[in-house]
Amino acid sequence: MTEKGKTRPNEKEIKVEGHLIDSMILTKIWNRIMELGGDFETIEFQVGKHKTDPSYARILVKAQTPAHLEDILREIYPLGALAFKIAEATLVPAPADMVFPDNFYSTTNNPTQIYLNGQWIPAENTMMDKVIVVNPHAKTAACKPIRDIRKGDLIVVGEEGIQVKPPERSRESTGIFSFMSSGASSEKPAITIIKKIAQDLHNFKKTDGKIAVVAGPAIVHTGAAPALATLIRQGYVDALLSGNALAVHDVEADILKTSLGISLKEGVAAVRGCRNHLVAINTIYRAGNLKKAVEQGVLKSGIIYECVKKEVPFVLAASIRDDGPLPDVITDMVQAQQKYKEQLKGVTMVLMLASTLHAIAVGNMLPSTVKLVCLDINPASVTKLLDRGSTQAVGVVSDIGTFLPLLAEEIEKLNSA
Amino acid sequence: MTEKGKTRPNEKEIKVEGHLIDSMILTKIWNRIMELGGDFETIEFQVGKHKTDPSYARILVKAQTPAHLEDILREIYPLGALAFKIAEATLVPAPADMVFPDNFYSTTNNPTQIYLNGQWIPAENTMMDKVIVVNPHAKTAACKPIRDIRKGDLIVVGEEGIQVKPPERSRESTGIFSFMSSGASSEKPAITIIKKIAQDLHNFKKTDGKIAVVAGPAIVHTGAAPALATLIRQGYVDALLSGNALAVHDVEADILKTSLGISLKEGVAAVRGCRNHLVAINTIYRAGNLKKAVEQGVLKSGIIYECVKKEVPFVLAASIRDDGPLPDVITDMVQAQQKYKEQLKGVTMVLMLASTLHAIAVGNMLPSTVKLVCLDINPASVTKLLDRGSTQAVGVVSDIGTFLPLLAEEIEKLNSA
Amino acid sequence: MTEKGKTRPNEKEIKVEGHLIDSMILTKIWNRIMELGGDFETIEFQVGKHKTDPSYARILVKAQTPAHLEDILREIYPLGALAFKIAEATLVPAPADMVFPDNFYSTTNNPTQIYLNGQWIPAENTMMDKVIVVNPHAKTAACKPIRDIRKGDLIVVGEEGIQVKPPERSRESTGIFSFMSSGASSEKPAITIIKKIAQDLHNFKKTDGKIAVVAGPAIVHTGAAPALATLIRQGYVDALLSGNALAVHDVEADILKTSLGISLKEGVAAVRGCRNHLVAINTIYRAGNLKKAVEQGVLKSGIIYECVKKEVPFVLAASIRDDGPLPDVITDMVQAQQKYKEQLKGVTMVLMLASTLHAIAVGNMLPSTVKLVCLDINPASVTKLLDRGSTQAVGVVSDIGTFLPLLAEEIEKLNSA
Amino acid sequence: MTEKGKTRPNEKEIKVEGHLIDSMILTKIWNRIMELGGDFETIEFQVGKHKTDPSYARILVKAQTPAHLEDILREIYPLGALAFKIAEATLVPAPADMVFPDNFYSTTNNPTQIYLNGQWIPAENTMMDKVIVVNPHAKTAACKPIRDIRKGDLIVVGEEGIQVKPPERSRESTGIFSFMSSGASSEKPAITIIKKIAQDLHNFKKTDGKIAVVAGPAIVHTGAAPALATLIRQGYVDALLSGNALAVHDVEADILKTSLGISLKEGVAAVRGCRNHLVAINTIYRAGNLKKAVEQGVLKSGIIYECVKKEVPFVLAASIRDDGPLPDVITDMVQAQQKYKEQLKGVTMVLMLASTLHAIAVGNMLPSTVKLVCLDINPASVTKLLDRGSTQAVGVVSDIGTFLPLLAEEIEKLNSA
Repeated sequence: MTEKGKTRPNEKEIKVEGHLIDSMILTKIWNRIMELGGDFETIEFQVGKHKTDPSYARILVKAQTPAHLEDILREIYPLGALAFKIAEATLVPAPADMVFPDNFYSTTNNPTQIYLNGQWIPAENTMMDKVIVVNPHAKTAACKPIRDIRKGDLIVVGEEGIQVKPPERSRESTGIFSFMSSGASSEKPAITIIKKIAQDLHNFKKTDGKIAVVAGPAIVHTGAAPALATLIRQGYVDALLSGNALAVHDVEADILKTSLGISLKEGVAAVRGCRNHLVAINTIYRAGNLKKAVEQGVLKSGIIYECVKKEVPFVLAASIRDDGPLPDVITDMVQAQQKYKEQLKGVTMVLMLASTLHAIAVGNMLPSTVKLVCLDINPASVTKLLDRGSTQAVGVVSDIGTFLPLLAEEIEKLNSA
Repeated sequence: MTEKGKTRPNEKEIKVEGHLIDSMILTKIWNRIMELGGDFETIEFQVGKHKTDPSYARILVKAQTPAHLEDILREIYPLGALAFKIAEATLVPAPADMVFPDNFYSTTNNPTQIYLNGQWIPAENTMMDKVIVVNPHAKTAACKPIRDIRKGDLIVVGEEGIQVKPPERSRESTGIFSFMSSGASSEKPAITIIKKIAQDLHNFKKTDGKIAVVAGPAIVHTGAAPALATLIRQGYVDALLSGNALAVHDVEADILKTSLGISLKEGVAAVRGCRNHLVAINTIYRAGNLKKAVEQGVLKSGIIYECVKKEVPFVLAASIRDDGPLPDVITDMVQAQQKYKEQLKGVTMVLMLASTLHAIAVGNMLPSTVKLVCLDINPASVTKLLDRGSTQAVGVVSDIGTFLPLLAEEIEKLNSA
Repeated sequence: MTEKGKTRPNEKEIKVEGHLIDSMILTKIWNRIMELGGDFETIEFQVGKHKTDPSYARILVKAQTPAHLEDILREIYPLGALAFKIAEATLVPAPADMVFPDNFYSTTNNPTQIYLNGQWIPAENTMMDKVIVVNPHAKTAACKPIRDIRKGDLIVVGEEGIQVKPPERSRESTGIFSFMSSGASSEKPAITIIKKIAQDLHNFKKTDGKIAVVAGPAIVHTGAAPALATLIRQGYVDALLSGNALAVHDVEADILKTSLGISLKEGVAAVRGCRNHLVAINTIYRAGNLKKAVEQGVLKSGIIYECVKKEVPFVLAASIRDDGPLPDVITDMVQAQQKYKEQLKGVTMVLMLASTLHAIAVGNMLPSTVKLVCLDINPASVTKLLDRGSTQAVGVVSDIGTFLPLLAEEIEKLNSA
Repeated sequence: MTEKGKTRPNEKEIKVEGHLIDSMILTKIWNRIMELGGDFETIEFQVGKHKTDPSYARILVKAQTPAHLEDILREIYPLGALAFKIAEATLVPAPADMVFPDNFYSTTNNPTQIYLNGQWIPAENTMMDKVIVVNPHAKTAACKPIRDIRKGDLIVVGEEGIQVKPPERSRESTGIFSFMSSGASSEKPAITIIKKIAQDLHNFKKTDGKIAVVAGPAIVHTGAAPALATLIRQGYVDALLSGNALAVHDVEADILKTSLGISLKEGVAAVRGCRNHLVAINTIYRAGNLKKAVEQGVLKSGIIYECVKKEVPFVLAASIRDDGPLPDVITDMVQAQQKYKEQLKGVTMVLMLASTLHAIAVGNMLPSTVKLVCLDINPASVTKLLDRGSTQAVGVVSDIGTFLPLLAEEIEKLNSA
């Protein structure tokens, strides 16, 4: 046994605190040490006596060489381990605009702090796969992507002086997040799930939570646009993040009663239907943009109409497969990411509805603390989106065309209750 | 040009009649001839002047050798072609029980007639991949599987004297079948589809059509069982074809309020939930069978309960993955197929709901003239089931848990209209 | 704090031992207590100092009422918890043939022991969702399905006196099982996976492990049958479990060079191809059965041929969608399950190849200690099959038609190395 | 019967020519007339006697009102119908930049001609969902998207004077396109398909065809990048169209031997693997761009490396989910579409490999005359991409990780043959 904190060069004492067992924090740390061929000794273990007590562990990590030790530590720090003797974080200036120093620290989506001059500084804008830029004078730190790096920015390198807080299992949450921990499946009682989500939305709205919706064009194709429009009108949506197709077909549905040329009332291909989305695009170009189309009385209903009327911000990001795209669509992807991030600031719950591309983009921008409901008819899409290691995310495999009208019905009941 | 009917040994005149162009009959025949490296000459072509007029074509098929010609003819006869000079069908006795003669004719699922002694005899029990057994004295013919063949049965061999009627594009059908010809997709207006199916069911019921439902256990897991129970109670189901799991979970839902151990009201795993389906099975074994359980007041609601009360026949076929299975379940597959076929006699419409195994079994037993709606959340399952080359089949990619309650709502509206 | 073992009626002391943290045993127990609204106090916790040391915990479970306590205990015993003071198991005779007593204990697929007369008796034939029948005189116990129960059989009821050993994370396994713990995905390095599986098969063969293959007909359709035939011929398969379709198309491929009528060499529909599988069936009926067909020289190559030549037992179970089925196919499902179980006795590794129905059946019959590789092109099928809470199971999402030839190539390299 | 060309206001004579029956041209026209509630009379029908002879039909379309007639004609002209008396196309100037005139004609992806001043002018840049801008003096016409429209551009409106040539069934094509007409399926003989595609690529290369590849990042994740790199080095790729992720992981694979942090050799998560793609991005930013990284010897192998060495143009389009993106990636979508189109000029064959977003973008840009092979492991993705109504497109459902190495093997055999 080693003295407290005194270790050989291929050994290091770490500590870890929190709901170690039920949140699987210790499980993950031990597993990763063993996967990497390392060994460990538990020096101290104080288990929380009661379910709300945190546990505490002091562990001696043993590697074959100092380099091997370095490897292991790099992997377990992001899982919540902390050096027993906390070292200061190392900062290295960026060698050029848009270039990181070599040994840069890459972020997770979990809350992270930097130890600097004897103080913990939280890193803002928690996001995955970014670097942390520190302003030591202002005692601030923020996650930044490569394109925002300027020469001389002080960037955290190595793994020391960084503390990551993995998400802990919620002990009191209610609604959909308390009851669905087992991943996405289509074989769950659908109406029950819908009721729980309705209840959550209702609670979030009452407590001034911020709700963002990421929406795919299938909402319009499947005839569910009026249900989403209702949710917006009733104040359940604080920001809408989407792409060109949603807006195009939403306009098409309003002015021509079709989506991708299919009559929404009859379900059959309309006459000249295949040019209808071009008519929608042309109509908006002629009006100037979507907002002007609403103001001019050209656009009279639908998802975008309700956003404009209710002053709910919407951000439409282009993609290379777009027709048009509409004048409102941001064609530069770096700028579009920026606009998405602005709208996601302070968000407490996100609904991802039948969207893949834009939902993945949003997923990459969210900290693990944001509640997330993700719906798609393709289980693989849901799995891909939920792969964030968080109990804050719930997947639903269902048909947006039947799901959203039933959700609007349930919310109506809660409103009138 | 050849004389009428007079051809060289590697040529043969055929004729074909019907809505050749819009039902793609001629397209398929020509394509197959070309694929096989053959050639053809159109001797006569009378196109239907008006949309209800049949067309007629006389075609000289040219092959490289007599054997090649034989190959081509074998392929185009089942597509609706007929030898210009109709030959008599050839009958050969089965050499032993459960053995076909060598050159046996294998059926399609299209209506088929046999030319014998100058008369056309329709083959009964139209089904795919069977042989035709003829009784020349009674002037009857029937499709039979290999296990039903007895030594000496007269079986049609070769391709002569057989006429197949491929399905023609319906010119007047309404409801769901008239508007969805484009295959399965989840990106269709869902509520519209549900209204059309409700209308079709309503019409079929009023006109004394026979409706069979093939049902998978996901109906119970997703909380849609009460909706199906309602349809049965209201007389929309004339036969239920399913397996062990549907009945087990239907009983479990009634007596324990769970399905596969998941609480249907709360959506969470119930205490000791994983043994609940065994409790359901044990309950039925104790009662004797499902019918007795209803009579004894043990089983008080659900799909099976309504079938028993309404005297709707249900056939439950075992599969190798079954727990139990229930005493009502037919464990011998040959016998189960027989029972299924009995219930499918005279059926005019079949709903396949979130079932794969039993739906494929039923699909194999149906003639192409039966209307078919097939719903699953997995598009690949729907495609597999619809692969019958018929405009009588409609695929819906949706979530049974939201679809069926909305369908029951729509039918309720029609009932009270 | 309570005295050792002394508790109030709504409290109970339990203990649990093993690799509690890295195998997530304690995580699961604590989570389940909290989910059920219970509370707990850790009385003693001895953590394994080194990675091979087991941990030990003594926990006081607190419920609101004695019934609530009962509920919680029922849920955590199968997770590995054990009453601190071990009680004897309770045995109740079956009230009738094929009827369980009311409070029967339902098995998991983990190794289980029964405490009786001061002794632990292991339950044989570990399988999910069965009851345990005990012979107190012979001191034996076995898992049995409902159809095998006879009046008077002594069946374990309640949750006392039963110990379940959940699978522990392997610390030394090699090959495919050590490196893939993260579930099924198609985005893994395919050739690497194939090499690891080849290595595992090679090792299992050398160490006299018993390897069973569950095979679906897509193996034949995709042209991979020769690769499987090679594996059989080289001794890599000790039992083949499948259904009618695999054998039918395997015969078709040998005698007609097609699978479902598609030419395996050209990939196009063969002339009269759609009757080819009936020809295959008829050929086997005429020969008598598959073995006789090999002996008579009728069947000259393929999967079944190699099984017959190599005397590898094969079990073919019917399903309701079968054509024929072949004379070798077991049409009664209760009997087919029995035959499957016989072949699975003592098996150490199972390959499930592009099979769904029969793979689920086999999955239900296996204890959690058997190594399992499951391959399908549909990720949903793989997920469904792997849902066994075991690190012994590996899912591969790939195309059997390209996967199996590459696997055979890799094994060839190992054979000649 | 009407006089030649003389019709009532709700009737119109049309003509249609080509392989009307086997290419289903007439089938589609008749079906659409009937779907829209119209009627028709066949005035003349000359069927091609031999398989290479075109057919010819003169049809009187009858509607209920002149407006109804207009509707029907709008739908059947794009299917290949032509007014019997050809009218001149109508041209209307664009009212403003990026605004179409109201009744604009929307293009299909089929070859199209405009009748102007008694002459047929072909429309260049055949693409779906565009308008046709005509230069009457230069006698040229071109398909253009809305963003390229300038005030005063003369745009074709209405449906008169436009002739569309739907694709005809190929009568002589070989290789993969001749044998797979039946849509995508995973149940085809895989090795056979691979051989056919290899043969086609080989033939196209020999005859100076231009081959473009659309590639997704799964190629790198599954370890298939070396196979694609080989095809590029051997001259089988004339243009590479992709996105940020493919290039990032291709660089990561070269410099760190991982893809998304997974070791390509071992298949396990590498130490600090999750930051590896950021290291790759940072490496390229430091080098300047991909080309410079190759020139500086930083990037030494892989897909991009071979493109640079072989001077094969590659276009990388951004998407909103990108990390980085790399300096070479075009972040503006309008510009990216332009660059894609430039590379697709004159292309004769396109391989779409495990790509969805970029593949759909390319699909929208291609005329129906380009040969297309589309591979994905998800059948829904393949179906979506192939939905172009052309026999020139072939879908393959397989695993890119096993498919591409086997394809490279087959091409090697052809090279050395």
